[in-house]
Amino acid sequence: MNKLTAFLTATAFLTASLLALLPASATFAGEGFWPPSNLPVAQLQHFGFTPSQQWTDHVQLASVRLAGGCSGSFVSADGLVLSNHHCVVDCLEGLSSPTRNLMAHFFYAAKRQEELKCPAMEVEQLVQTTNVTDTVDRATDNQSGAAYTAARRAVGSRLETQCAGAQSAQWRCEVVSLYHGGQYWLYKYRRYQDVRLVFVPSQATSFFGGYPDNFNYPRYDYDVSIVRVYVDGKPARTPDYFPVSAQGPAAGELVFSSGNPGATERNDTIAQLEALRYPILPDELQYLTHYEGLLQAFSARSESDARIAQGDLFFVDNSIKGLDGELQALNDQQQFSRKQADEAQLRAKIDADPVLRSQYGDAWDRIAEAEKVRLAMSLPVQMIVGQEGFSAQLFDIAFTIVLGAHERTLPDTQRFDDYRAASLPLLEEQLFSPAPVYPDYDAVRLRSSMTTLGNLMGWDAPICQQLFATASPEEVAERAVRGTRLADVGVRRSLWTAGEAAVAASRDPMIVLAREVLPYYLMYRRMYEDEVTSPIEANTTRIARARFALFGTSIYPDATFTERLSYGVVSGWLEAGKQVAPFTTVAGLYEHARDYAPVALSEAWLAARSQLNPATPVNFVTTNDIVGGNSGSPVIDRDGRLVGLMFDGNLPSLGGAFWYDGALNRAVAVDSAIILAALEHVYHADPLVKELTAGG
Amino acid sequence: MNKLTAFLTATAFLTASLLALLPASATFAGEGFWPPSNLPVAQLQHFGFTPSQQWTDHVQLASVRLAGGCSGSFVSADGLVLSNHHCVVDCLEGLSSPTRNLMAHFFYAAKRQEELKCPAMEVEQLVQTTNVTDTVDRATDNQSGAAYTAARRAVGSRLETQCAGAQSAQWRCEVVSLYHGGQYWLYKYRRYQDVRLVFVPSQATSFFGGYPDNFNYPRYDYDVSIVRVYVDGKPARTPDYFPVSAQGPAAGELVFSSGNPGATERNDTIAQLEALRYPILPDELQYLTHYEGLLQAFSARSESDARIAQGDLFFVDNSIKGLDGELQALNDQQQFSRKQADEAQLRAKIDADPVLRSQYGDAWDRIAEAEKVRLAMSLPVQMIVGQEGFSAQLFDIAFTIVLGAHERTLPDTQRFDDYRAASLPLLEEQLFSPAPVYPDYDAVRLRSSMTTLGNLMGWDAPICQQLFATASPEEVAERAVRGTRLADVGVRRSLWTAGEAAVAASRDPMIVLAREVLPYYLMYRRMYEDEVTSPIEANTTRIARARFALFGTSIYPDATFTERLSYGVVSGWLEAGKQVAPFTTVAGLYEHARDYAPVALSEAWLAARSQLNPATPVNFVTTNDIVGGNSGSPVIDRDGRLVGLMFDGNLPSLGGAFWYDGALNRAVAVDSAIILAALEHVYHADPLVKELTAGG
Repeated sequence: MNKLTAFLTATAFLTASLLALLPASATFAGEGFWPPSNLPVAQLQHFGFTPSQQWTDHVQLASVRLAGGCSGSFVSADGLVLSNHHCVVDCLEGLSSPTRNLMAHFFYAAKRQEELKCPAMEVEQLVQTTNVTDTVDRATDNQSGAAYTAARRAVGSRLETQCAGAQSAQWRCEVVSLYHGGQYWLYKYRRYQDVRLVFVPSQATSFFGGYPDNFNYPRYDYDVSIVRVYVDGKPARTPDYFPVSAQGPAAGELVFSSGNPGATERNDTIAQLEALRYPILPDELQYLTHYEGLLQAFSARSESDARIAQGDLFFVDNSIKGLDGELQALNDQQQFSRKQADEAQLRAKIDADPVLRSQYGDAWDRIAEAEKVRLAMSLPVQMIVGQEGFSAQLFDIAFTIVLGAHERTLPDTQRFDDYRAASLPLLEEQLFSPAPVYPDYDAVRLRSSMTTLGNLMGWDAPICQQLFATASPEEVAERAVRGTRLADVGVRRSLWTAGEAAVAASRDPMIVLAREVLPYYLMYRRMYEDEVTSPIEANTTRIARARFALFGTSIYPDATFTERLSYGVVSGWLEAGKQVAPFTTVAGLYEHARDYAPVALSEAWLAARSQLNPATPVNFVTTNDIVGGNSGSPVIDRDGRLVGLMFDGNLPSLGGAFWYDGALNRAVAVDSAIILAALEHVYHADPLVKELTAGG
Repeated sequence: MNKLTAFLTATAFLTASLLALLPASATFAGEGFWPPSNLPVAQLQHFGFTPSQQWTDHVQLASVRLAGGCSGSFVSADGLVLSNHHCVVDCLEGLSSPTRNLMAHFFYAAKRQEELKCPAMEVEQLVQTTNVTDTVDRATDNQSGAAYTAARRAVGSRLETQCAGAQSAQWRCEVVSLYHGGQYWLYKYRRYQDVRLVFVPSQATSFFGGYPDNFNYPRYDYDVSIVRVYVDGKPARTPDYFPVSAQGPAAGELVFSSGNPGATERNDTIAQLEALRYPILPDELQYLTHYEGLLQAFSARSESDARIAQGDLFFVDNSIKGLDGELQALNDQQQFSRKQADEAQLRAKIDADPVLRSQYGDAWDRIAEAEKVRLAMSLPVQMIVGQEGFSAQLFDIAFTIVLGAHERTLPDTQRFDDYRAASLPLLEEQLFSPAPVYPDYDAVRLRSSMTTLGNLMGWDAPICQQLFATASPEEVAERAVRGTRLADVGVRRSLWTAGEAAVAASRDPMIVLAREVLPYYLMYRRMYEDEVTSPIEANTTRIARARFALFGTSIYPDATFTERLSYGVVSGWLEAGKQVAPFTTVAGLYEHARDYAPVALSEAWLAARSQLNPATPVNFVTTNDIVGGNSGSPVIDRDGRLVGLMFDGNLPSLGGAFWYDGALNRAVAVDSAIILAALEHVYHADPLVKELTAGG
């Protein structure tokens, strides 16, 4: 609901529709995001390991997804979930106030009754997967454009509704596309919405080194969070979990990571990658750096304003560095030429076979045409559908109410995905979150973003003529923020419950603004889905089928924020002729520290120095193939012990959106040895250590 | 001295060293920036016009350059200078205060004693040009790297010092490179440093339509400023001037523009254009959009803060839209392929001739190598030499004092160009400007920019280890801004006058900071000049000579912010199948207006509506080939009457940095008819109208 979610949504929106197909090049050691239905058995046998069905099921059930865009795992039989600190920032900000700053200080609930309920957080456990490819194909075959969109939406809604039944608050069912529509699966998740904070370090500790060290290595971050899921007011029983190892992994050891990589474009066509290279990524980076400047200036106003903007600034900075790395990768002419050659080779193979050619030969051209349509409408889509023109939490709230009232008048099969029955429990949890709202912050952001809307779309754009008929963007924004009553959760709830007529009658200026935006949103989102998403989906599915016909299924699908297993070994890499060691140590951590944030050690860490073994590993790197969304993924050994916690990739791993380079691409994890050692010696959380190591 | 200057300096720094050579393609009607020594006589004869020597000399002497990066012209015999409003923003901000806002309100000095002296402004009139190609060539032939830099600097210093003599406050002499070193000229300018404000409209009027309309057309801007130059306390006598025509030009009429186009890259090699396309322009745009976000958030704090940031925000927004257009042009695959073909054709011609090949054949590869070196050092160069890491007026002041103290210990022949004797009068004028300084504004900017320095360069960069040894970037910035006494002009003057020992002994924290930065600045600037600028200059000169050998000199040199004549006709263009009319009118202006800035009309314009003829032209477009730096250029007819005032180009003209497209590229001017009509009916400045039209 807040800007972070909106940002992730916008990004997901951007990339989810850029899906394409599989690379012709052979997989490298460590490469791949393998779904539970298709593990890389042959590759693992090289390491003398064959996963049993029991092992696979256990790993799947012990792994969880965090609805905000992260991964995690159960680490005790009583519902303890281990993830990253940066995955629970929304919770920490929601629970913070001028007198309790959970970003600045560590938190540990020594007793269960001290555990704090996160305002809006959902943990999801994948409990069942069913192949529904035939059902979906029958519903959508030979459809295109708006008809394809409608058919795809209808069959998805039907399958999901049947699966979840009346208990949509307990189960979340999703039709998942793998191999870009080569396969469809129905995934059933157990939802946990009562999530309580047990332990977090301060952000200074979790993000030690700050922006300069982000995506860099050597690294010394304790990017850890521990929450507990509750059912009916009691800790959930979670018999499938990973006990935390006191040792951590050895150099060269085979390890697995089980998580939900977000979105990759490894199988995009060249036309799609070229559009990303210019103008999509450069435009997105301009949006983000603008926002970064705004947040820095807002933060400079006072300490409390800095606290308000801290979470957004973290995510914006992280995105800038990440997308900069992706843009750099796309401008690597050598790698890009290899992709071009792959595509040319695949197309030549298809063109050489008259049957394949007539079935699939024009799919690339159809996608290239859809990319042109995308670029032609990208400005209004980004501004209005991606809501870059309306950056403010109060606007997000108003627009959710207005769009929700509209969508809920439609049958489930005709709604946008994010307003279908399956999505409403989490959406309502967020909409009615008691987390505070900051009008001054919203005013600055909404003024700036609506000014940008006007600047880029121009005086004659119909939406600008309407919104700015008698007042400037800044005035409209200021009045809406100052006049709205939506900071009050009760007001939101009554509007949401009362539905369309009440929303239409509301004179709340933010609701009025959202209402004025709605028709433009609906028009552009439908146009985009029908003329961009739909032809791209349909034609990437055709390419997928061509690939299956040629190469079979011994390949992995692009990431889609669903459960995947990756494998790899603990290993450094050679950078500019210099070997980077796989482990960092406690000694290195203390050497890297200075007297100020973000390289200052907290008092707890300074006090514990003599208790910690200088040789204890802090972070390590592996060849696992992970991307954004894998944050919080457990690193486990072949016996199912948790030996680390993924939290980042190195700089070369940012090209992982498009390709995997086994020589350079490294995942970065917190070592389980420091997780336990710090809980014991820095945070004096002995009961927690005991719970984490039980059964190990 | 303030951030705007620093920004222009940084930009100039970026582009000045990207100079290359001439296109093989034929010139279009209107194409070219023609130096006084080489007018396009053949092209003009097509219009039945042959410029006499007298005509040429008169145009040159009536035209002026504004040291901040603009053009202008004398418009009376008593020193009146006409230019754009946006060319005198520094003056207006320097003269503004909480009780007098010259950006918000129009100003007119009905009497000479009411004319206001601009705090730091210089008007320059080109009075003499001498070809010194042989002298420079003899000094630099067969030199490379640091030796080339030193030889080039020494011969330049010697020629300039001889030319200006002891009167460097009165004369400015510059060795000018035309055709990328194919020719060198010594240009002698008369300097006017006593420049007084006579008339400006409000910025709302000069920049009517704001960001959305900038670079767009139709347009309705009254982007006019009038200043007067004084000598010895009296208006300068300026017998060469352009009387202002009450009529303006006719559609299809041949017109000239005389001004100082800033910098173009029409003759860059493909390697250079590729580096601009990525990463140079995208990086620069990220820097600018970050700054825009910061300025918008700062402006939202209060009305007076908005006034402080207004000028910077205008320039930043203007640069964003301009560079975005350049980046879009470079991503036009069709135009880019044409450039590639041009270069391939030229290289093939040279390779086909054994003599040319041995003399010039490897020049492109040498430039490509220098481009790689540039990219390898671009981060520290932008941060430290371009000073993007230190965005604050007080830092600029401190650094000018520290670097100036260092440079002035060297002989003139060894100094950086901007600290040679020829540059000091203007530099001192700016350094000792009584214009106010805003510590809160500087604190926000310096905190943010030093944070970016740390973020991008990393904890281990030597400059970060030194500057941030014991305090964070934000703390260092805050202490320097709060502790410095450099807001006091007297303190600046005494440090500047006392020289190196006094600067070394100063404990002013901003001076201390600048002193710590100095060695890194010197190292990177020298490295850049020796390893990037020098080989590129030397090899573009080689390409220039190859071109002369093949094609002769009937071509124009790239723009270098020196006096050039352009010609063209008043003409609209065909955009997406629709004809754009060449003129806009008073009627259109009133129709385009709304009730709020930046589309609100001032009270003066609202009151004058009935006095103005609705058919009077406001703006018009021509096929003249102009670029940034041409702002304020007079548009004159063949009889030397001023019929318009250049202030902008249309969106397609932004590709003019790289190529001229006669079908789409249009210059945008204020019509002389509205200049006079508004002075009479809106501003009631009858004496001024009389002075402007005398002799016409």
